[in-house]
Amino acid sequence: MDKNFPVKKVSIICAKGALEDVYAALIMANGAVMEGIEANLFFTFFGMDAIIKDRMNKLHTGTVGNPAMRLPWGSRMPSLLGIIPGVEAFASWMMKKEMNKLDIPPVGEFLDLIQAGGGKVYACKAAADMFKITMKDLCEHVSAIITVGEFYELAAGEGSQIIFT
Amino acid sequence: MDKNFPVKKVSIICAKGALEDVYAALIMANGAVMEGIEANLFFTFFGMDAIIKDRMNKLHTGTVGNPAMRLPWGSRMPSLLGIIPGVEAFASWMMKKEMNKLDIPPVGEFLDLIQAGGGKVYACKAAADMFKITMKDLCEHVSAIITVGEFYELAAGEGSQIIFT
Amino acid sequence: MDKNFPVKKVSIICAKGALEDVYAALIMANGAVMEGIEANLFFTFFGMDAIIKDRMNKLHTGTVGNPAMRLPWGSRMPSLLGIIPGVEAFASWMMKKEMNKLDIPPVGEFLDLIQAGGGKVYACKAAADMFKITMKDLCEHVSAIITVGEFYELAAGEGSQIIFT
Repeated sequence: MDKNFPVKKVSIICAKGALEDVYAALIMANGAVMEGIEANLFFTFFGMDAIIKDRMNKLHTGTVGNPAMRLPWGSRMPSLLGIIPGVEAFASWMMKKEMNKLDIPPVGEFLDLIQAGGGKVYACKAAADMFKITMKDLCEHVSAIITVGEFYELAAGEGSQIIFT
Repeated sequence: MDKNFPVKKVSIICAKGALEDVYAALIMANGAVMEGIEANLFFTFFGMDAIIKDRMNKLHTGTVGNPAMRLPWGSRMPSLLGIIPGVEAFASWMMKKEMNKLDIPPVGEFLDLIQAGGGKVYACKAAADMFKITMKDLCEHVSAIITVGEFYELAAGEGSQIIFT
Repeated sequence: MDKNFPVKKVSIICAKGALEDVYAALIMANGAVMEGIEANLFFTFFGMDAIIKDRMNKLHTGTVGNPAMRLPWGSRMPSLLGIIPGVEAFASWMMKKEMNKLDIPPVGEFLDLIQAGGGKVYACKAAADMFKITMKDLCEHVSAIITVGEFYELAAGEGSQIIFT
């Protein structure tokens, strides 16, 4: 580790809405605030689901088109199986249960935790316009709806990293 | 914002070919040039479709395997539905229509805009070799086919960020 | 190129397990070490498959839900086709054959190459706990199972870039 140039700030863009994509962004943000690193979360495109009040706790795992998806006994899940109604819901439930065992909280509580650690949450203006979403549709963690240009301003600083999950 | 260390350059890698993945890269690049930030776009793997002349304006939305996909009336689209022939085309058409309403241009025009703002477009040599693509298959926005090593050289500079969409 | 601020270190997060996602991470890491740039690879979530001994050389291409997937004669592969049993295996085999022609090695040999160039390989603690994976399940390239916080410490340094593939 180079003590002279530590990572001081991470600005994480969450653009995908599958459970595992959103959690990747949340885990990177939470890992940062726990180390005393400043964290900004910027939700855009399908990632917006994670901060839309009536969707945030109902995210699904992507079973179809994820050739790395496994069945509970460890063998590869055939892509065909992923389209059977109920399989995606089952895989989502299974993953949430595993996360729960590890004390990984649901999305809303995870955002509470990140915010308590000083992390900030933003929504993307272009995506909000496209999906006709306003501040009243978003959870209370969201500070503001900002443009990509404003996001780049937030990401300024020495030891700053932009991470697109 | 830390005025002493602004973001001065972004080097964006676009490796996926779905409409929403390509637009994420284009929106990040365009947002940069509009702020006076230098922007490099590097297309590789399936992202190459966005700069291949006869494919760039026919990109599709990933409906299958995107558990965050929504139907026009806002309810979650069952993954099963995504495989019905025509649904992907319909979703792609719908998203293009919404983008059009927001003055988000088609891929070719978007690259014109980014280039007019000083942004540069490159193709990945390894991907070009794998897909047997040469400069004549690529749109006129592409400056050169370069290696990953050359990409890292382009990404040099103070306040520089590499973003992999 | 800005000779005063070259890219000196890349810390690459590989979170997805499809063949093309893992190769994107490996190609970015290998391109770095070949240029004398320090490289850290951090495998998490489904990307863990790339360093799990009995999975690493059996990765699949994501054919379902990848609207950019092409048939051998270059036309777009209908998403429907991707679910037919055998098509994903065929596409994976085809892509591996093309990679082989370009001297792109299988995952294990690629990790050998990156390690020989000084690159380091790590597994994510949260993902290892979730999937009940320990060091004995992982290939010998893996130096350690580390937390996200420890990953940020590794990513410290002047001219350092975090890349999430």
